[in-house]
Amino acid sequence: MTSLATSRVSSSFRTTRGVIDRVARHSPARLAVASFAGVIVVFTILLCTPWAARSGRGAPFVDALFTATSAVCVTGLTVVDTGTYWSTAGQVVILLGIKVGGLGVMTLASILGLAVSRRLGLTQRMLAATEVKTSRLGEVGSLLRVVIVTSTAIELLLAVWLFPRFLLLHQGVGSAAWHSVFYGVSAFNNAGFVPTADGLAGHAGDWGLCLPIAFGVFVGSLGFPVILNLMRNRRRVDRWSLHAKLTITTGLALVAAGAVLFLAFEWGNPGTFGPLGVGDKVIAAVFQGVMPRSGGFSTVDVGSMHETSWLIGDALMFVGGGSASTAGGIKVTTLAVMLLAIRAEARGDRDIEAFDRRIPPDTVRLAIAVTFIGATIVLVSSLLLLEITGLTLDRVLYEAISAFATVGLSTGITPGLPEPAKYVLVALMFVGRTGTMTLAAALALRSRRRVIRMPEERPIIG
Amino acid sequence: MTSLATSRVSSSFRTTRGVIDRVARHSPARLAVASFAGVIVVFTILLCTPWAARSGRGAPFVDALFTATSAVCVTGLTVVDTGTYWSTAGQVVILLGIKVGGLGVMTLASILGLAVSRRLGLTQRMLAATEVKTSRLGEVGSLLRVVIVTSTAIELLLAVWLFPRFLLLHQGVGSAAWHSVFYGVSAFNNAGFVPTADGLAGHAGDWGLCLPIAFGVFVGSLGFPVILNLMRNRRRVDRWSLHAKLTITTGLALVAAGAVLFLAFEWGNPGTFGPLGVGDKVIAAVFQGVMPRSGGFSTVDVGSMHETSWLIGDALMFVGGGSASTAGGIKVTTLAVMLLAIRAEARGDRDIEAFDRRIPPDTVRLAIAVTFIGATIVLVSSLLLLEITGLTLDRVLYEAISAFATVGLSTGITPGLPEPAKYVLVALMFVGRTGTMTLAAALALRSRRRVIRMPEERPIIG
Ligand SMILES: [K+]
Ligand SMILES: [K+]
Repeated sequence: MTSLATSRVSSSFRTTRGVIDRVARHSPARLAVASFAGVIVVFTILLCTPWAARSGRGAPFVDALFTATSAVCVTGLTVVDTGTYWSTAGQVVILLGIKVGGLGVMTLASILGLAVSRRLGLTQRMLAATEVKTSRLGEVGSLLRVVIVTSTAIELLLAVWLFPRFLLLHQGVGSAAWHSVFYGVSAFNNAGFVPTADGLAGHAGDWGLCLPIAFGVFVGSLGFPVILNLMRNRRRVDRWSLHAKLTITTGLALVAAGAVLFLAFEWGNPGTFGPLGVGDKVIAAVFQGVMPRSGGFSTVDVGSMHETSWLIGDALMFVGGGSASTAGGIKVTTLAVMLLAIRAEARGDRDIEAFDRRIPPDTVRLAIAVTFIGATIVLVSSLLLLEITGLTLDRVLYEAISAFATVGLSTGITPGLPEPAKYVLVALMFVGRTGTMTLAAALALRSRRRVIRMPEERPIIG
Repeated sequence: MTSLATSRVSSSFRTTRGVIDRVARHSPARLAVASFAGVIVVFTILLCTPWAARSGRGAPFVDALFTATSAVCVTGLTVVDTGTYWSTAGQVVILLGIKVGGLGVMTLASILGLAVSRRLGLTQRMLAATEVKTSRLGEVGSLLRVVIVTSTAIELLLAVWLFPRFLLLHQGVGSAAWHSVFYGVSAFNNAGFVPTADGLAGHAGDWGLCLPIAFGVFVGSLGFPVILNLMRNRRRVDRWSLHAKLTITTGLALVAAGAVLFLAFEWGNPGTFGPLGVGDKVIAAVFQGVMPRSGGFSTVDVGSMHETSWLIGDALMFVGGGSASTAGGIKVTTLAVMLLAIRAEARGDRDIEAFDRRIPPDTVRLAIAVTFIGATIVLVSSLLLLEITGLTLDRVLYEAISAFATVGLSTGITPGLPEPAKYVLVALMFVGRTGTMTLAAALALRSRRRVIRMPEERPIIG
């Protein structure tokens, strides 16, 4: 590239950056929703073209829209099999959708976080959370660049880690490389898409595959602010932000709880952990414990699991992963803040505290709002899906929460759903992906000071 | 009665009152749990005697325990048919259990409320909530007397209202009187027990029966503080407490929502509203809308309802009725406070406000604690029931929430449950009945002031 060309690219990059920056300042929540909708439209059109499907005919609109939404919202629910239905070109489009969607989530959530900090005058919010220097924080473009570089580096690392394993599975170098990249990107972005029809079925005890994928999903689910915070303070735990500490401890606790419960309930299930040896059972349980965070991969058949495990999965998926991450759900810090509020109430403490820090009481209101609205969305969409499909509540609820929290696990009903149900899931994935982060930001950004204070009166609770 | 005897009774009443008063001051939450457990043991023994069952042989322990718990906790779930399995003596025992349980709930909840007010130094809490004069508040015995007189008066009123209707249904005077009293007590105490095998089946459009019962259930579900507040300020809405206003508006809104949704989803269901005329459909829908509050009566077969209606019922039952009432659930004010907190957050208000009053922010923590712990109890017991029974999630969840919120509606699985599942439900009814009120009081009573305040740091929510 000549110096002139470089300068042109750089200048156009700067102009784009300026535009984004202005919109981001003006109405960050609208930017998030509009850009996601726009990207989904583009990828739907791409997947409708004849060369995207293996059959050579264009995919039906609803399936293209569903797949595009699932990819861009990094959900992983599929109405058609990724490995056999789509051509290699189509699979590349899906992978690109995952990459763009993942970057979009991380960047937009960070932008929203910035807007909130600016408004609240709390520079320390993002400072503490991301450790990015203030001068950099001012520029959305810089943020985007940091996100792209960091996430791509982690994805490549995962791909390199996976590559020898795929070679050992008797794949050619090209195929092994493609699968390594696909799984690396899919794992870090918590997308849950698999490039083959079988996916990870039959690899339950294969820690060479399971470990990098579970690791990638977990790191991806921490969220960009935490990843950056950790990278800059690797061995200095005292410098970790409260947000990072809460995200990591709550996330690990949920993984452990999930692993233990799945191990207990699926131990003898002939359809899942039953045929595995004890060691393989443990690996599979840990893997399944990480996935509701919201990776969405599975080494065993979710459809064959006990209903009890589905219900446990429902709870874990609803919580989801870290804020400003590619994971969905109400987020682990939301759960943590509510649990800490309950602990403070049980102890009779005035302040809500964690890791020697005081958490402002208005975060509790925000946490309730996010949880309550999330639960209402899941409830209403479950009612719709029950009415449309006539399926049982256990499967419908699992599917609805999986879509809302962009997890992508399914009891197997997705491909057979009637068209209206597919549209409900598309809406659910979109709302789940853009909803919680924009809602939290929009709420945090509002502030109405009233001079008059009403007299206090206490209703009876419980 | 001679003057001496009167004085003796009065003196022994005063001694008992003194004992209760001391325990109530010392550890009100323990008093509530212990007295409920004691009463259940007594009624289980009574129901185990040969003369309680129509067969003349003693009922199995598990069924006697289940029925006693269901009666004392005013739930209404039954493993055997009340009208045919139990003798008249047995039915009188059950009715007595309901009466004692209902009085117990109302009194204990009020005592707990008193303890909280004393501790918080907030005499206005109970004053505002109950409008009982301060001199009376000091004495638990007086409170008990007010509760007994008021509730018995309302029950008799309901019985008198129902009596002519039962006469018109071609019943003898004795039978009509018995049924009137049974339904009056069962309705006001939100017990949901019916004295005949058919219960209210086939009476969906019978407003002469449905109206008094629905009215009794709704009034009972308001709770003692609200009833007293209303009785003393019948036409002076400006004197109604915030608690009363919140309880009534939220309660009515939930009834309306339930009625409209049930009407919409069950309109054409041949097993429920389908065969009814339009007018009867509306009456039946309003009746079903009131019952999750937690009356537990039903004029249509709940087992034949759509799964969508079960899910709507789940949500309504979980919320339940008013604080210090015979209704269960997390209580309508708990929901109201969370919704108001969300509204305040959405508006950007500093204070949570309703009806020109400011609600203290620590009530929000209490509301989350009650809701979160309630949801966890339902989740864990659903897991247990799923594992024990092998039934589907929709039915198990409905049963678990019905037991937890002491509603007593069932999809029909109760009588056929295996013994361990019956014990799970017994525990669930007991915890649901005594848990939320003691928890809320215990939490409100704790207060630990620490001198050191930690530095503030804000995690990212959503
Ligand atoms: K996913
Ligand atoms: K009941």
